[in-house]
Amino acid sequence: MMQNRLLNWTSRVFMLAAALTLAIPAFAQQQGPRVVSPEISADRHVTFRVLAPKAEEIKLIGSDIPGNGPGAAMTKDGDGVWSVTLGPIDPGAYRYTFNIDGVSVVDPRSPSVSQSNDNVWSLVYVPGSDFMDANDVPHGALAEITYHSSSLGRERRMHVYTPPGYEIGKDKYPVFYLLHGASDSDDSWSTVGRAGFILDNLIAAKKAKPMIVVMPAGHTGPFLPRNMRPPRDEFVEDFNQDILPYVESHYRVIANRAHRAIAGLSMGGGQTINIGIPHLDQFAYIGVFSSGVFGINRNQDDNNPTWEEQHLDVLDNPKLKKGLKLFWFGTGKDDFLLETSRATVEMFKKHGFDVEYDESDGGHTWINWRNYLNGFAPRLFQ
Amino acid sequence: MMQNRLLNWTSRVFMLAAALTLAIPAFAQQQGPRVVSPEISADRHVTFRVLAPKAEEIKLIGSDIPGNGPGAAMTKDGDGVWSVTLGPIDPGAYRYTFNIDGVSVVDPRSPSVSQSNDNVWSLVYVPGSDFMDANDVPHGALAEITYHSSSLGRERRMHVYTPPGYEIGKDKYPVFYLLHGASDSDDSWSTVGRAGFILDNLIAAKKAKPMIVVMPAGHTGPFLPRNMRPPRDEFVEDFNQDILPYVESHYRVIANRAHRAIAGLSMGGGQTINIGIPHLDQFAYIGVFSSGVFGINRNQDDNNPTWEEQHLDVLDNPKLKKGLKLFWFGTGKDDFLLETSRATVEMFKKHGFDVEYDESDGGHTWINWRNYLNGFAPRLFQ
Repeated sequence: MMQNRLLNWTSRVFMLAAALTLAIPAFAQQQGPRVVSPEISADRHVTFRVLAPKAEEIKLIGSDIPGNGPGAAMTKDGDGVWSVTLGPIDPGAYRYTFNIDGVSVVDPRSPSVSQSNDNVWSLVYVPGSDFMDANDVPHGALAEITYHSSSLGRERRMHVYTPPGYEIGKDKYPVFYLLHGASDSDDSWSTVGRAGFILDNLIAAKKAKPMIVVMPAGHTGPFLPRNMRPPRDEFVEDFNQDILPYVESHYRVIANRAHRAIAGLSMGGGQTINIGIPHLDQFAYIGVFSSGVFGINRNQDDNNPTWEEQHLDVLDNPKLKKGLKLFWFGTGKDDFLLETSRATVEMFKKHGFDVEYDESDGGHTWINWRNYLNGFAPRLFQ
Repeated sequence: MMQNRLLNWTSRVFMLAAALTLAIPAFAQQQGPRVVSPEISADRHVTFRVLAPKAEEIKLIGSDIPGNGPGAAMTKDGDGVWSVTLGPIDPGAYRYTFNIDGVSVVDPRSPSVSQSNDNVWSLVYVPGSDFMDANDVPHGALAEITYHSSSLGRERRMHVYTPPGYEIGKDKYPVFYLLHGASDSDDSWSTVGRAGFILDNLIAAKKAKPMIVVMPAGHTGPFLPRNMRPPRDEFVEDFNQDILPYVESHYRVIANRAHRAIAGLSMGGGQTINIGIPHLDQFAYIGVFSSGVFGINRNQDDNNPTWEEQHLDVLDNPKLKKGLKLFWFGTGKDDFLLETSRATVEMFKKHGFDVEYDESDGGHTWINWRNYLNGFAPRLFQ
């Protein structure tokens, strides 16, 4: 009797499963051996796998993964499953794709992704970090916000982190605007950048003040570096006309200079300078990660006014400088923008700015940008 | 002089662009002709493209795309770009992947994706809908929430839509719990399901009350239909012990039966019944999309008590039924769960429930589920 019951129950589940399977295209993707990818071992080795019996060559692309270099070759087993194991890999988030016979594609067996401006990456998180794991602490809310950009005439998207307790509370909060780099999107800081978890952990440890973090989309169209782009950065207008006013009218914020911060990495560091310096009366904290004034070293034979010449009214205004509580630059010693950062820091120092400049190890990587965020955020609004 | 200036400026931009390009892996992916995909024409034809010179066969997978059937064959041009044009396609969101020589992959040239439980889809939105476009109306916030599940002992994720004005206001709101189907994730309703935009538009038109919409993750692990799953649905425990209490302690909600609704599609419709009926004292609105009590037609030779037999205390309790303001079922005439829906509706009617049942055109598709949401949400909390 018991056996019959079990049999019936098994058979019922199987029939239901079979019926469901018919309607679920996800399962149509899965033929042959079941592939698990990525697989993370206890000693932080990561195995990447993809089922592709007909492929001739597959490489793992993922520039921040230590030892991966220009792309690790994957090898095929008898079932047509290609794999490579790398590690031990430091805790952190890593973007990757598979280059299958020249086509770069995300991992067919993983739902975890990170969006750039015109493509998407697979994302693997190697746990074990003391500052960016998803720990059992109070968590903020990480929202996708659709807003109307009057300067661009269309609906756009940004991400907004509200600190733990915001949605039930009444307090007003300071706001930190955090900008991404070239080719990336408003999604990048909260996926590969771990911004939400970094803030959760800092706030839980009382190392950082609870704050709202606004992560807008720094590109306003395709990123086409080989063509000439318009000299006017549409994003800067969007930020000034729409993003900041939207945040200050839709959130409980402390709307004054002492409670506004802005930082950005690479292209977003340049945008940070181009927003923060002309509006220095509005920001008390400015952070520039792996960046500076673009082109600062290339003006010698140029008759156009330099960035410096264009901003002398702010650069030489002692009153404006007085309320700037932190002006922080961080760049890796191997960063291709190292000279740009150094020259920018020198230029600001020449004009009497109290600039802090840290040269870290490493290069132009999310490894550094997460570290910079983890060091910068605790110094805001104190 | 002017020419020199232009030349210098062009050269400067080019040098900067070249320097940036070195450090941006996204560009490493892009060799050969520049590919735009998907491209949507004014007459709602969509062209899908992928650069894959070495591929032998590519099909477009995307089951909701009209006319696509089992997968449209794509054809290769002289540059190695494969393409197919389909349409006209009704306005809406469509998931797709490219099956390249047996490997299902997302579009390498599009950042727009929709997550399932263990894979990700590319997503194309064909505009022109009167109810789900991203219009210039006040928008709600669509948040990813990380919460600690005490029943599962780990951090989990859900999506929460807060209506326009929530983050700056003081009002309390009713809550609508909206569950996804088998193989999908807490991301699905707000990407391919367009839940946020549907609610934005309904609220702007004053067709629906402002409400909080909670979209949890209905899977608690890999979805393995061919193996026997535990009879106990871990998600139902997570919902009762953690999700609903989290929402009611972290948001400004009206925490009573008249201001709680629950609905779900397919597997989520079954979960809706398994949460809503045993806790009928807590929900005044229940919606079941393309679903019913799973196995309701398969009990004849089974000695276990049927779902109906297990729930007689609620099914035959007139007091509990009294506060149920809407009990709505919707299923497509071509849906493989049609008989399950019909039998479930009949079972509830037999016990004196005032059930509304709509049989729509179509099948087990997001096209129907978006329509059902658009019809169901306006009837809540009125």
